Amino acid sequence: MHHLTALVTLLAIALYFYTSINVSRSRVATGVKAPAMSGHPDFERAFRIQMNTLEWMPIFLPSLWLFAIYFSDAIAAAIGAVWIIGRIVYFIGYSKEAAKRGPGFAIQAMASLALWIGALGAVAWRLAH
Amino acid sequence: MHHLTALVTLLAIALYFYTSINVSRSRVATGVKAPAMSGHPDFERAFRIQMNTLEWMPIFLPSLWLFAIYFSDAIAAAIGAVWIIGRIVYFIGYSKEAAKRGPGFAIQAMASLALWIGALGAVAWRLAH
Amino acid sequence: MHHLTALVTLLAIALYFYTSINVSRSRVATGVKAPAMSGHPDFERAFRIQMNTLEWMPIFLPSLWLFAIYFSDAIAAAIGAVWIIGRIVYFIGYSKEAAKRGPGFAIQAMASLALWIGALGAVAWRLAH
Repeated sequence: MHHLTALVTLLAIALYFYTSINVSRSRVATGVKAPAMSGHPDFERAFRIQMNTLEWMPIFLPSLWLFAIYFSDAIAAAIGAVWIIGRIVYFIGYSKEAAKRGPGFAIQAMASLALWIGALGAVAWRLAH
Repeated sequence: MHHLTALVTLLAIALYFYTSINVSRSRVATGVKAPAMSGHPDFERAFRIQMNTLEWMPIFLPSLWLFAIYFSDAIAAAIGAVWIIGRIVYFIGYSKEAAKRGPGFAIQAMASLALWIGALGAVAWRLAH
Repeated sequence: MHHLTALVTLLAIALYFYTSINVSRSRVATGVKAPAMSGHPDFERAFRIQMNTLEWMPIFLPSLWLFAIYFSDAIAAAIGAVWIIGRIVYFIGYSKEAAKRGPGFAIQAMASLALWIGALGAVAWRLAH
C-alpha cells in the first residue's frame, strides 16, 4: 500500500479545490458574471491560477503514483509535498501580480520532473530486467 | 478488485465526453469557429459546462478510487453515481441559463466532498494503526 | 504489473507537457502577455492544442488503465501508442491552421473509444461472472 502518497494526493486535491473557491470569490469581488471568464485582471489571474494548477494535475498525479508504485512511497510523498509547497508559493505570488508567478512555478515544475524522471527510470529498468 | 468503481468511472467519462460533444454541436449552432472560445452566450455556457466538469475530474476520480481502495467499492460506486446524477442536473440547468447551475453543482460537490473526507479518514486511520 | 502501460502513460504526459511548453513559446512569439489567453490567432491555436489535449487526458488515462488492468497490458499500451501518434498529428495539423485539426483528432478519438469500449466490456463481463 502507498499510504503517504495517498495522503499527499488528497492534500494536493484540497489545494487545487481551494484555487477554484478562489475563482468563485474573485467573481463576486470583481463582478465578472458566469459564463464570462475575462473582464477584470484580478479575476483573470485567479482563473489562471486555477487553470494552471488543473493543467498540471495530469502531469503530477500519474507521475507521483508511478514513482510511488515503482520506486518508493515515502520518497514520492516527500517530492509530492514539495510540489504542494511550490503550488502555494505560485498561488500567493500570482495573486499579487503576473510577474511574481515564476518561483512557485519553478518549484512545482522541478518536483514534477523529478517524479516523472524517477518513474521513467524505474519503469525502464523493470522492462529491461 | 473494484468492479463497481471501475464501472462508475467509465460512466463518468462517458458523461464528461458528452459535455465535449455538446460544445462541438454548440459551435455549429452558434457559428463560433475554432479556435475562438467566446462570441455567443449559448456557446459560452456549453463551454463552461464542459470546463467545469473537466475541472472536477481530478477532484472526483482520485477521491473515488482512494475511497474505493481504502474503504468500500460498493459505497464508492454509490456516491460516484450520485456525482454523475448531480453532473446531469448541472448540465441540464446550466444549458437553460447560468442562474440554474446551482442545484446540480451542489449535488456533485457534496458527493465529491463525501468521497474526499471518507478517503482522508481511511488513509489517516491506516497511517495511525 | 503493467510496465508497458506505465511507459505509455509517461510518454503521453511528456507529449502533453510539450503542448504547454509550446503555449509559453507562442506567448513570447505573439506578444500575448499572461494572464490574457487571446489576442493573436497563432497563440489561440497553440492554447487550444494544449487545452484539447488536457481535455482528453481524463478520458484517455483512466480508460487506458482500466483496459490494461481488466484486459491486457500489451494491447492497452499498443492502443495508447496510437493515441500518442494521433495527438502528434493533431498538434502538427492544428499548428498550421484550425481546419487541419481533423485527422489527428479522429485518430486519438478512435484510440480512446477502443480503450473505453474494451474496458467497459471487460468490467461488465467480470460483474456478470
